[in-house]
Amino acid sequence: MHAYLYTAFITLLTVALLFAVTFNVGRARGKYRIQAPATNGHEMFERAYRIQLNTIENVLMFLPALWLYAMLIGDKGAGDSGMIWLVGRIWYAIAYQTNPAKRGYGFLISLLVIAGLWLGAAYGIYGVYLKA
Amino acid sequence: MHAYLYTAFITLLTVALLFAVTFNVGRARGKYRIQAPATNGHEMFERAYRIQLNTIENVLMFLPALWLYAMLIGDKGAGDSGMIWLVGRIWYAIAYQTNPAKRGYGFLISLLVIAGLWLGAAYGIYGVYLKA
Amino acid sequence: MHAYLYTAFITLLTVALLFAVTFNVGRARGKYRIQAPATNGHEMFERAYRIQLNTIENVLMFLPALWLYAMLIGDKGAGDSGMIWLVGRIWYAIAYQTNPAKRGYGFLISLLVIAGLWLGAAYGIYGVYLKA
Repeated sequence: MHAYLYTAFITLLTVALLFAVTFNVGRARGKYRIQAPATNGHEMFERAYRIQLNTIENVLMFLPALWLYAMLIGDKGAGDSGMIWLVGRIWYAIAYQTNPAKRGYGFLISLLVIAGLWLGAAYGIYGVYLKA
Repeated sequence: MHAYLYTAFITLLTVALLFAVTFNVGRARGKYRIQAPATNGHEMFERAYRIQLNTIENVLMFLPALWLYAMLIGDKGAGDSGMIWLVGRIWYAIAYQTNPAKRGYGFLISLLVIAGLWLGAAYGIYGVYLKA
Repeated sequence: MHAYLYTAFITLLTVALLFAVTFNVGRARGKYRIQAPATNGHEMFERAYRIQLNTIENVLMFLPALWLYAMLIGDKGAGDSGMIWLVGRIWYAIAYQTNPAKRGYGFLISLLVIAGLWLGAAYGIYGVYLKA
């Protein structure tokens, strides 16, 4: 496990991020009086809901790419990339809630990190394949 | 793999839970005649749909926390926690479908288990970091 | 890592699939002028959105089942099953976007693969348990 210390730490923070965006939906549900199971009715609630769904879909690409990179290339690089990804996602979440038009950069940063991890992992798999 | 027998078993049951709540949406789609891609139109269908989405968002926090805990603290504790989490999620799903007002406890149990696994994993990472 | 070469490769392609269906939603958002955070308003956009959500819910069952199978039974079998799953999911996505009525087979194939991986992993866990 020692070998994946940074990757484990990033994964832990990712779970905290998921918790935060989920909690934010519950908060908005109460504040704007959107009774479950409804998922629309107030612009601010719909933003909170979209932030959560977008974070979920992004995490589902990020975590596999992160761990593949960690296993095939290295733990330290996965940890550094993960930190940038987290900054991008927090930016995205805050921007979307306050002004949807400004969410672009945060979204772009997180997507570029995933692309980088993905390419690194692909390169690693190719290297292992050549030696096999 | 022997080292993660309980964690693997819980993961297997989690996949079965995801299958069950997904199947339930398909069933509700047929019963209340909600043609895809619509996701609303009948209260009972919307409940089934919300159960599935809520289970997905919960699983995405649970599985990473479960495996981090298993790797950093131990397989047996992860297995026991996972069993409680499963009880909470099954409770939640059944309660939401029959009476949304009663889903609270199941939801709370599953969230507390995730919090416990998360804190355990954080403690484990801190311990590894001190020794590094 | 060498031990999970095929499984890692399938995981990489799964992340690419998630990216493709996510990109498709963004494309549909622009083409049919559905301003965020709205998620309905045009049939074609709603299809793209449903493809993405359905892929997400399917991946969340597939990846854990795939890796459990790889760890408990073998990497090669996981890789072969994963290839069939990918074919099913790509079929599903293309069919749903062009003609929802024809998405059934793709969906069925991907579900059968998950069931096979799940049963294989369950058998593997049972075998480890007997020896423990």
